[in-house]
Amino acid sequence: MRFPSPVPVQWIADLIQAKITGNSNGQATGINELHKVETGDLVFVDHPKYYDKCINSNASFIIINKEVEVPSGKALLLVENPFEAYCKIVNHFRPFEPSNKNISDSAVIGEGSFVYPNAFVGHHVTIGKNTVIHPNVTIMDHCIIGDHVVIQAGTVIGSDAFYYNSKKDRAVWYKKMPSCGRVIIEDEVEIGAGCTIDRGVSHDTIIGKGTKMDNMIHIGHDTVIGKNCLIAAQVGIAGVVTLEDGVTLWGQVGVSKTLTIGSNAVILAQSGVGKDTEGNRSYFGSPIEDAREKMKELVWVKRIPALWEKVMGKP
Amino acid sequence: MRFPSPVPVQWIADLIQAKITGNSNGQATGINELHKVETGDLVFVDHPKYYDKCINSNASFIIINKEVEVPSGKALLLVENPFEAYCKIVNHFRPFEPSNKNISDSAVIGEGSFVYPNAFVGHHVTIGKNTVIHPNVTIMDHCIIGDHVVIQAGTVIGSDAFYYNSKKDRAVWYKKMPSCGRVIIEDEVEIGAGCTIDRGVSHDTIIGKGTKMDNMIHIGHDTVIGKNCLIAAQVGIAGVVTLEDGVTLWGQVGVSKTLTIGSNAVILAQSGVGKDTEGNRSYFGSPIEDAREKMKELVWVKRIPALWEKVMGKP
Amino acid sequence: MRFPSPVPVQWIADLIQAKITGNSNGQATGINELHKVETGDLVFVDHPKYYDKCINSNASFIIINKEVEVPSGKALLLVENPFEAYCKIVNHFRPFEPSNKNISDSAVIGEGSFVYPNAFVGHHVTIGKNTVIHPNVTIMDHCIIGDHVVIQAGTVIGSDAFYYNSKKDRAVWYKKMPSCGRVIIEDEVEIGAGCTIDRGVSHDTIIGKGTKMDNMIHIGHDTVIGKNCLIAAQVGIAGVVTLEDGVTLWGQVGVSKTLTIGSNAVILAQSGVGKDTEGNRSYFGSPIEDAREKMKELVWVKRIPALWEKVMGKP
Repeated sequence: MRFPSPVPVQWIADLIQAKITGNSNGQATGINELHKVETGDLVFVDHPKYYDKCINSNASFIIINKEVEVPSGKALLLVENPFEAYCKIVNHFRPFEPSNKNISDSAVIGEGSFVYPNAFVGHHVTIGKNTVIHPNVTIMDHCIIGDHVVIQAGTVIGSDAFYYNSKKDRAVWYKKMPSCGRVIIEDEVEIGAGCTIDRGVSHDTIIGKGTKMDNMIHIGHDTVIGKNCLIAAQVGIAGVVTLEDGVTLWGQVGVSKTLTIGSNAVILAQSGVGKDTEGNRSYFGSPIEDAREKMKELVWVKRIPALWEKVMGKP
Repeated sequence: MRFPSPVPVQWIADLIQAKITGNSNGQATGINELHKVETGDLVFVDHPKYYDKCINSNASFIIINKEVEVPSGKALLLVENPFEAYCKIVNHFRPFEPSNKNISDSAVIGEGSFVYPNAFVGHHVTIGKNTVIHPNVTIMDHCIIGDHVVIQAGTVIGSDAFYYNSKKDRAVWYKKMPSCGRVIIEDEVEIGAGCTIDRGVSHDTIIGKGTKMDNMIHIGHDTVIGKNCLIAAQVGIAGVVTLEDGVTLWGQVGVSKTLTIGSNAVILAQSGVGKDTEGNRSYFGSPIEDAREKMKELVWVKRIPALWEKVMGKP
Repeated sequence: MRFPSPVPVQWIADLIQAKITGNSNGQATGINELHKVETGDLVFVDHPKYYDKCINSNASFIIINKEVEVPSGKALLLVENPFEAYCKIVNHFRPFEPSNKNISDSAVIGEGSFVYPNAFVGHHVTIGKNTVIHPNVTIMDHCIIGDHVVIQAGTVIGSDAFYYNSKKDRAVWYKKMPSCGRVIIEDEVEIGAGCTIDRGVSHDTIIGKGTKMDNMIHIGHDTVIGKNCLIAAQVGIAGVVTLEDGVTLWGQVGVSKTLTIGSNAVILAQSGVGKDTEGNRSYFGSPIEDAREKMKELVWVKRIPALWEKVMGKP
């Protein structure tokens, strides 16, 4: 998340009661989690496993629970609980101030657009022109919807990420990372009924121009869907996934987190994608393989009894 | 879709600025897409691959982008873009005039029926007697709900079909076929929470009498479900599918488009149905096989290591 | 379901016009279906297959359609249609009196909690402190929501069970068992968008403290989820399942009915759980196997062509 304007790191250190070392005169331009961090960003790390990765990332300001050497030009903010400190900063810039109206006064709805009864449109939502929002749709705060978009009934745009800070020595193992990213739906996108699209944890979840989605599709946080993709019903895509342009996913496909599917790839129904996947090819299976190879494999399995009989005799 | 009354084909030719050849005195009784076309219907074709199929179909009036020989008694309507012409006709008879009330004034609700708060009931919807519509349900225009029906919370009846005119040389590859069909829910049907049932593109999607559906089930456009079917949670059925009477689908089953499942067939959980399937048998797997054969196959796979050792020696 | 206070069995016999044999002076403390029956309970049985199991269960009062020997201290209530009698009793204690307000006057909402617009909160619902109910959520009658709970948009709590009395010689094969149990959401639980959690048929469906659920998850009737479980998107869990503490289910997993998954088990994405499953291990596949064994199996399948060539010659 970008801050509304750059924030002196000393001010942040005061907010979270951190001891600051290194460049205490800097200004933070945003806050991010490790997957998506950029120069100028604040980031936090609370597990030794990630100290190095975090310190050597693009982050300029690191909230940490151990005194380590400060890389040149950066600042460390030492606190006992970096996760709580991170949440405190996010909650400062995105406090919980829910709308108590069906359509928030701060929402902007473009010319020629229609919002059906029973839809909810949160604070600072922008809806473009000639867009139709069906009944019982929910659009949470800060989301951006383009022109000529259709969002069918019951769909939820901007639900919180399923992303937790996990410690199994606490009474409650999982504590939620507050989601301060947005969902951006580009022009000409159509989304079916009963879908859920999570907002980014710190960046944006994006559905690219001209992409068409069927019913009951789940899209995780910070996932970026390219242009002119076709996604059939009941597909689930985890967080931080990239679909390049023109990808087709057939019904009930599952896509695991933090991977990329290349442009114009086709994933056949009920398949499971667990790793980066080259474009311009078809895939099938859980886990996926090249579709033709997988089909051949299904035939080979049927030949086992004949092979057994030849080697072992009548079963 | 039937027209309210027969429409002179000359009037339609004027509407879409078509050059008419053949029987220009006919009257069109309806408009359909190729899968469902009947005598008296208008249909469109824009791809050489389907010219023959379309001209030889039951359609009486064909919107087309090439001058071809007119079959006896039929009429051709020549235009540059048959898809746009089709949309223009559909939009004339089913213009976008959404209700801005929770329950449209033109909806009819039978004696003894109850509609919970936050449900949306669109224009020209008919709900029978002793039917219960739970909160946050959406019933879009023109749908018909029978007697003694239960529709649980969050379910959407009459969402638009996921059906697109596809051309990969345009900026936007996919353009929506407008859905002018309906959803018909027969008597004694019960539908769980969070389901989505798409309307037909040109015909009706039908859920047969006495069928019971669990939560989060997706039913595609123009699909016809028989009587007394049992459909477990998270099943997805694509468009133009026929389920004959008494079919049972267990949880998370997927059914591909334009196929038939025979009466009293049982499809076990997580299976994928990709072709026509005989009734009175059980099936399992993705893609499905006879359930007992598939179970045996799973056992055979476990014998590969023993076979390998016999043939190749210790692995 | 517990009755508000013990009910003389003679009063119940009058209500359902039953002939009573055995201990006609007893008082029934509740009514249950066979899976969950306790001492003091009424239960019904209408199929010879279950007579013995029912008579020897903990039930004190048995609604039955055959004169059999009465076990000591129990009472039999003889009627022609035990299922109809059961429904009559349940409907007496839980009559259909739906709320016509978004938030029922009998609902109790704790300090610091916020209910967004368009949410529905039914009769006798209790919501704890500092809990957030997002837009278009539905919470049906009698459900109990704890403190520090988040329920995201479009989710349904307390939908009716998918549980039917089945007789294939009637015009309508399936008749619904009325659900009189509740859903209980314990403290610190977070539930994503578009989920559905069915109420118990006669007991309660419970989501244990600290459990976190992603979007579009289905939980069946009378299922009990332990503490600190992690359930990813599009998982479906059938009825009467037990998840012990700390279980992790990844995306699109399916869990069949009336089984137990041991504590800290991990079920990988798209797997299907069909039987009781030991804790502290990882599983994969449909049906599941030990994850490492399953991975090895996938490799063995790829070796069939080499084996074939060795035994049979070039294919």
